[in-house]
Amino acid sequence: MDADYSPAALERLFTALSNWGRWGDDDEQGALNHLLPEHRVAAAALVRVGESISLARNLATTPSPENPSPAHHHMLAAGDARDSNGIPGYEAARDYVGSDVHGLGVTHVDALSHMFVRGEMYGGRPASDVRSDGARSNTVMSMASGVVGRGVLLDIPRLRGIDFLENDDLIRRTDLEGAEAAARLRVGAGDIVLVAWGRDPRRQARRGAFDGMSGLHPDCLEWLHERDIAVLGSDGISDPMPGLAIENWPFPVHQVGITAIGLHLIDNMALAALGERCAAANRWEFLFSMAPLRIERATGCPVNPVAVL
Amino acid sequence: MDADYSPAALERLFTALSNWGRWGDDDEQGALNHLLPEHRVAAAALVRVGESISLARNLATTPSPENPSPAHHHMLAAGDARDSNGIPGYEAARDYVGSDVHGLGVTHVDALSHMFVRGEMYGGRPASDVRSDGARSNTVMSMASGVVGRGVLLDIPRLRGIDFLENDDLIRRTDLEGAEAAARLRVGAGDIVLVAWGRDPRRQARRGAFDGMSGLHPDCLEWLHERDIAVLGSDGISDPMPGLAIENWPFPVHQVGITAIGLHLIDNMALAALGERCAAANRWEFLFSMAPLRIERATGCPVNPVAVL
Amino acid sequence: MDADYSPAALERLFTALSNWGRWGDDDEQGALNHLLPEHRVAAAALVRVGESISLARNLATTPSPENPSPAHHHMLAAGDARDSNGIPGYEAARDYVGSDVHGLGVTHVDALSHMFVRGEMYGGRPASDVRSDGARSNTVMSMASGVVGRGVLLDIPRLRGIDFLENDDLIRRTDLEGAEAAARLRVGAGDIVLVAWGRDPRRQARRGAFDGMSGLHPDCLEWLHERDIAVLGSDGISDPMPGLAIENWPFPVHQVGITAIGLHLIDNMALAALGERCAAANRWEFLFSMAPLRIERATGCPVNPVAVL
Amino acid sequence: MDADYSPAALERLFTALSNWGRWGDDDEQGALNHLLPEHRVAAAALVRVGESISLARNLATTPSPENPSPAHHHMLAAGDARDSNGIPGYEAARDYVGSDVHGLGVTHVDALSHMFVRGEMYGGRPASDVRSDGARSNTVMSMASGVVGRGVLLDIPRLRGIDFLENDDLIRRTDLEGAEAAARLRVGAGDIVLVAWGRDPRRQARRGAFDGMSGLHPDCLEWLHERDIAVLGSDGISDPMPGLAIENWPFPVHQVGITAIGLHLIDNMALAALGERCAAANRWEFLFSMAPLRIERATGCPVNPVAVL
Repeated sequence: MDADYSPAALERLFTALSNWGRWGDDDEQGALNHLLPEHRVAAAALVRVGESISLARNLATTPSPENPSPAHHHMLAAGDARDSNGIPGYEAARDYVGSDVHGLGVTHVDALSHMFVRGEMYGGRPASDVRSDGARSNTVMSMASGVVGRGVLLDIPRLRGIDFLENDDLIRRTDLEGAEAAARLRVGAGDIVLVAWGRDPRRQARRGAFDGMSGLHPDCLEWLHERDIAVLGSDGISDPMPGLAIENWPFPVHQVGITAIGLHLIDNMALAALGERCAAANRWEFLFSMAPLRIERATGCPVNPVAVL
Repeated sequence: MDADYSPAALERLFTALSNWGRWGDDDEQGALNHLLPEHRVAAAALVRVGESISLARNLATTPSPENPSPAHHHMLAAGDARDSNGIPGYEAARDYVGSDVHGLGVTHVDALSHMFVRGEMYGGRPASDVRSDGARSNTVMSMASGVVGRGVLLDIPRLRGIDFLENDDLIRRTDLEGAEAAARLRVGAGDIVLVAWGRDPRRQARRGAFDGMSGLHPDCLEWLHERDIAVLGSDGISDPMPGLAIENWPFPVHQVGITAIGLHLIDNMALAALGERCAAANRWEFLFSMAPLRIERATGCPVNPVAVL
Repeated sequence: MDADYSPAALERLFTALSNWGRWGDDDEQGALNHLLPEHRVAAAALVRVGESISLARNLATTPSPENPSPAHHHMLAAGDARDSNGIPGYEAARDYVGSDVHGLGVTHVDALSHMFVRGEMYGGRPASDVRSDGARSNTVMSMASGVVGRGVLLDIPRLRGIDFLENDDLIRRTDLEGAEAAARLRVGAGDIVLVAWGRDPRRQARRGAFDGMSGLHPDCLEWLHERDIAVLGSDGISDPMPGLAIENWPFPVHQVGITAIGLHLIDNMALAALGERCAAANRWEFLFSMAPLRIERATGCPVNPVAVL
Repeated sequence: MDADYSPAALERLFTALSNWGRWGDDDEQGALNHLLPEHRVAAAALVRVGESISLARNLATTPSPENPSPAHHHMLAAGDARDSNGIPGYEAARDYVGSDVHGLGVTHVDALSHMFVRGEMYGGRPASDVRSDGARSNTVMSMASGVVGRGVLLDIPRLRGIDFLENDDLIRRTDLEGAEAAARLRVGAGDIVLVAWGRDPRRQARRGAFDGMSGLHPDCLEWLHERDIAVLGSDGISDPMPGLAIENWPFPVHQVGITAIGLHLIDNMALAALGERCAAANRWEFLFSMAPLRIERATGCPVNPVAVL
């Protein structure tokens, strides 16, 4: 990590990029405020071929190094007990699904209550707002009406002509600008920006082993802030793993991005299929749609975001 | 119930409306096959004002008569344990969410493995395909890429000039046709049809008591089949509750709709806000988007569908 | 409630009965300290007929008014998937069980971390020791080696010649003394005292309706403390339900018993069968054994205590 | 494995040791039928020093190679939300615990519905009795009143003067007889027999790595059957891991022991502390007590068995 990314530099960044109060003291939308109706109308107009593509990984129900606490999928009544409801003629299966919300394996969106810096959340709300019986502010309900807008894919390995980035090869601001230029568009207000570093290809090349992830260098944060994007997603967690060796700032994109800027982050997306379609058409923008479950006190939610081309 | 809806009539309907084999022996998409890329393109063009509206109820975590087994939302680390990850400076909250997939309270989509008629699922697959360790066919993965297309709201109480239907006041084929005519559109191939009977207003009028629901009369099934719709949703469960008094056919929309026609059903939607917007604009069609989690062996999933106007 | 049970009287009682520091500053056993090896030897000698009786209710998996959040019992592999392990010839069923620890339905034991008075637990430990990722002191591990000793049943309705007590008919100190006298024994150091008010008979008489429970009047607390009992159990929750109308002291047995005295409480026991056996033999003491699961950070545990006669 | 333990030999063993029908066609107790009231009385008389020792491991909540699906322990209300009940003055913590019932990590007891041989359970009941909504016969309710009797520890490594057995060093019938002789007792009707191979010492020597377990050779089965024991427990799973290379009979103790003999098995016990106490006193018998939760349709239960010396 560069000398200029000292803890003090991160402190300054945190202050400089803070959106606290920008949309009023009660605001819990953060950067989602940038996403306006007109952006949705424009995003809908991007649909050309009518193909819908999932940007989520399958919800794993068996453990793996990147996901040691996988989801529960339990049948409550399978085909053998299809009569368990007791209503003659009514034959039905029922099931239960449960999952950790965060982590390194599940495709999920982070609400603004997921992160704290020195005990404070976005907007200066105290950590005590996230009680053991659920969060009282900055919850996933900020996205209750869905996040629908223009999605932009910045596919860094493709830009560089490689299959994937190594863990210590971070994505820089210049990469984002380069990918934007190559895509012949300008990332702007209200965009949902998806940054790929090549997680799936790397996993395949490593035969499934999990030893970390590439991610965004902190110098990307200013750019993301300048461009007024609404949401940031990644095939990793946006931050590299393991975290950076900056004292107290191991995960700057989470710490500055969520807490200062008010960015909702989408972690562990599946972006390989989208990358192929975008490359084939040489179009990197699309209609994006994602709607977390309406869990009133949650700090995030597993999701299945889709791109419509 | 009319004399002409005898068990024998339902049998005939089941056979007459069957789509088994229509799209090949391996098909697990059912009526979703009607939803083509061109429909998505056309649906996207319906976005005018850029407003996104949630069609889901909040995921209840406390029990109620209509939802006796509510969801679990458990904090794994709240604000008081934001340091629980052990990484200096990294302060994060984590949570767990679990839910029954089906029932009368949770907004969810039924996969084609949810229902059986005499031990068979859509396509003639055996009940034994839905094992106690998960479904092997007709799973929710049919919708893994999202369900995106034209949504049409048929708001029956509004058509009739009332606030809500009583439980024994069923929605007939003529109601659907009437609502369609009033909406000045034609329900057609690939549409996601949402039928409202006024659940929220009725609940309010009844002060929260739950004593059943209105729903579709079986004579709607032929119409839905003729029109080649892709998905059917309702603020109830499409079938009236309690079930009809037709021997062995208590829930014809589930039994014939899911199993014969191959319709994915969305149950327990929140349609009141959408109804108001549609009425105000006098436009009843919109871009619809829904993407269940990618749970490989599930028979359905809680969802938060959105309408984009 | 008597005039002499003012909030101030409860305050005095709390101070007077406090065992904080009695067994050292690090003590987390509370009144379990009274239960000595010699008591176990003596208790074992009470076994005469060799009958073992369960003192637990079935773990409900369907909701009821007294247990709105019942346990989960999910099959992971039933008979239909007995081959799911993939080992030829190995045919096995597997399941999952989950339960709330406390409440009014599940037979469970309260650890000393279950209750606080003005933010403090037994021994003066702060509420912050019970973090959202688990309790750090006064956990159920106090009972990790099992609670084995002399059990004594004080069956109040039988003493009074009635089937059950009404909710507002509280058990007084004189009742406990009367039952003790009738049992021709003396409750003493290390005893596990089980007090029955007739929950099951009352439930039966009320046809399953749940409208509250009888319990111990606060004047019992001094007696329990004087006698140096180790554990208190009840077919209710020891406190009457709904709570008493003493400001800030709705549940004195929980508040003073657990927090000041350091009593582990067993709630929602099934005592009817035991009562019948004891009455038939006119013997009210027996070997008692209970062993909560070793959950390192739990504030209690569902249990199945047994009496051996 | 010896030549004489061919699949055909196991078939013969299964038939020869079968207790099906021995206690009537309706019997679901299996070998528990051997444990009579007189055995409980005699077992109680074994209590000399009054020490109670847990025979369970802590319930792990983090994954490990031997326990990839650990328990859930979730706080529902920690100290920070002790007021969440809404009753003034009532400050309480609440939690939830959930666990897989079987596996290689959790101390648990297997009910007779856990195992099948060619689709049949103990007593000839069909696999279809274990439905996806729970078992209908041979459930854990067989032990609802608790398992209380004489426990006998057969500590094989101590007998051999070593710390632990290697995986491929199986326990033979001669080992059991040798340990019995060294203990100067005779294993007999109704005994709860606990066989240690040194799991904890081996784990320590291997620094926590998990690569399998020793266990009982099938030639032990005849001996266990001849002696009419009631229950078999082990610090492993009684069978060695990975399973034996006998076609279709990978786990003979589970397959013959549970299904033919009707033995309830206790897996993954913690026997090291008990071994030390027994060796110090040179007494290998004790009062044993275990009481699984009363889960009506379960195939087993996590337990905390105790030995009282």
